[in-house]
Amino acid sequence: MPRYKLTLEYDGTPFCGWQFQENAPSVQQTLEEAMEKFAGHPVRLFVAGRTDTGVHACGQVAHGDFEKEFSPQTVKNATNFHLGYGAGVTVLTCERVSEDFHARFDAKKRFYQYRILNRESPPVLDQYRVWHVRPPLDIERMQAGADYLVGRHDFTTFRTVRCQSQSPLKTIDSIHVTRQGEMIFVDLQATSFLHHQVRNIMGTLQLVGSGAWDPIDVQEALLAKDRSRGGPTAPPQGLYLMRVSY
Amino acid sequence: MPRYKLTLEYDGTPFCGWQFQENAPSVQQTLEEAMEKFAGHPVRLFVAGRTDTGVHACGQVAHGDFEKEFSPQTVKNATNFHLGYGAGVTVLTCERVSEDFHARFDAKKRFYQYRILNRESPPVLDQYRVWHVRPPLDIERMQAGADYLVGRHDFTTFRTVRCQSQSPLKTIDSIHVTRQGEMIFVDLQATSFLHHQVRNIMGTLQLVGSGAWDPIDVQEALLAKDRSRGGPTAPPQGLYLMRVSY
Repeated sequence: MPRYKLTLEYDGTPFCGWQFQENAPSVQQTLEEAMEKFAGHPVRLFVAGRTDTGVHACGQVAHGDFEKEFSPQTVKNATNFHLGYGAGVTVLTCERVSEDFHARFDAKKRFYQYRILNRESPPVLDQYRVWHVRPPLDIERMQAGADYLVGRHDFTTFRTVRCQSQSPLKTIDSIHVTRQGEMIFVDLQATSFLHHQVRNIMGTLQLVGSGAWDPIDVQEALLAKDRSRGGPTAPPQGLYLMRVSY
Repeated sequence: MPRYKLTLEYDGTPFCGWQFQENAPSVQQTLEEAMEKFAGHPVRLFVAGRTDTGVHACGQVAHGDFEKEFSPQTVKNATNFHLGYGAGVTVLTCERVSEDFHARFDAKKRFYQYRILNRESPPVLDQYRVWHVRPPLDIERMQAGADYLVGRHDFTTFRTVRCQSQSPLKTIDSIHVTRQGEMIFVDLQATSFLHHQVRNIMGTLQLVGSGAWDPIDVQEALLAKDRSRGGPTAPPQGLYLMRVSY
């Protein structure tokens, strides 16, 4: 059956996350229903990285099979037509791929960005799009703390105890902390991440940035291999899956 | 009475615009009600530039008088406390000014930005924050068209026929068109603008960018001094009052 690779943008706010759930709207179900409307049969989507409630995507990747051959442009336009304006999700690009392509297993690198609005006043234009942190954050301290996490480590301290991954060993290729005015952007790259890994790292880096922790405390927490030694879980609305490379 | 200058951020979406209206929530009323709650008396706000329904502000300026002396930090924090999270408006900064300061009449320059999302797929993360234009726009053509508008001109072609300004003569100091990926930003600076002037300019520059008009047609439209010779009015959700200088 013809297989298609889709690049997706979505707003995490109105969804229970990527994955299908009874009694709650998911990104997956919203897309699959739009596709069934023009395909005339159920379409099952497989995704590069499942995202939690409230987490956004600018470049999520999924694949799905159709019984008939459509042009990629038709798949994109027909899906977006049936989604309609204001659906909270859109297809950015679509391409025809071979039948052994898999959005999850073939992914080489995943790129996440975490956004903090660092000011006293609450977010208005960026409501539901950032983590609002009032105390001034020192990004040089945050970068110094983040540097201890780059490389291959046991990330038990930074994954949720509910994480289903068999191994806590992961390799983070890079973490870059930058500031543009009141906004702080943290860009992270890895082959794959553990459940809540980015949000738990961010909750910890915020402690370093505000002065509550020293950068070296991040290394101590990492070496403790104990979730209770890490910082809190940062909220989902600051997290964006930016891109997946193949 | 002590006078305070406020810098404001607001989301134009939930409001009927800045100005008070019966039966519709305005930015002005929302702020004035929050201020009355801690001041204990009605507070009247005067604004640098009234904005229409849907138009956003990152740096609107208003002033208001209180019967008692408060610290500027108290005015800011108490107003934001009574507004609460999700009010659609927040006070960014507050300062004590002299009693002859006037947010509107003392403004030296107003800085607006217009944002276009130029791609096929509808906006998702930027819904209500951009004008969605599907045809590819050539920003060099847009800049060439915009250049005819810089300087002192009769802007009858670019103001709404409902504009109450006595004279259609205005001076635009600068218009800069830039692109960042799928986003196009148009930055405009002037001492003051006519009603709908920026949105009518944008509707016209979009025609130039898409190839429907040549850049020189902007000059012809300007010289015609006839609203019907200008392009359509661009939608409000792409427009931001960025800053006001004094």
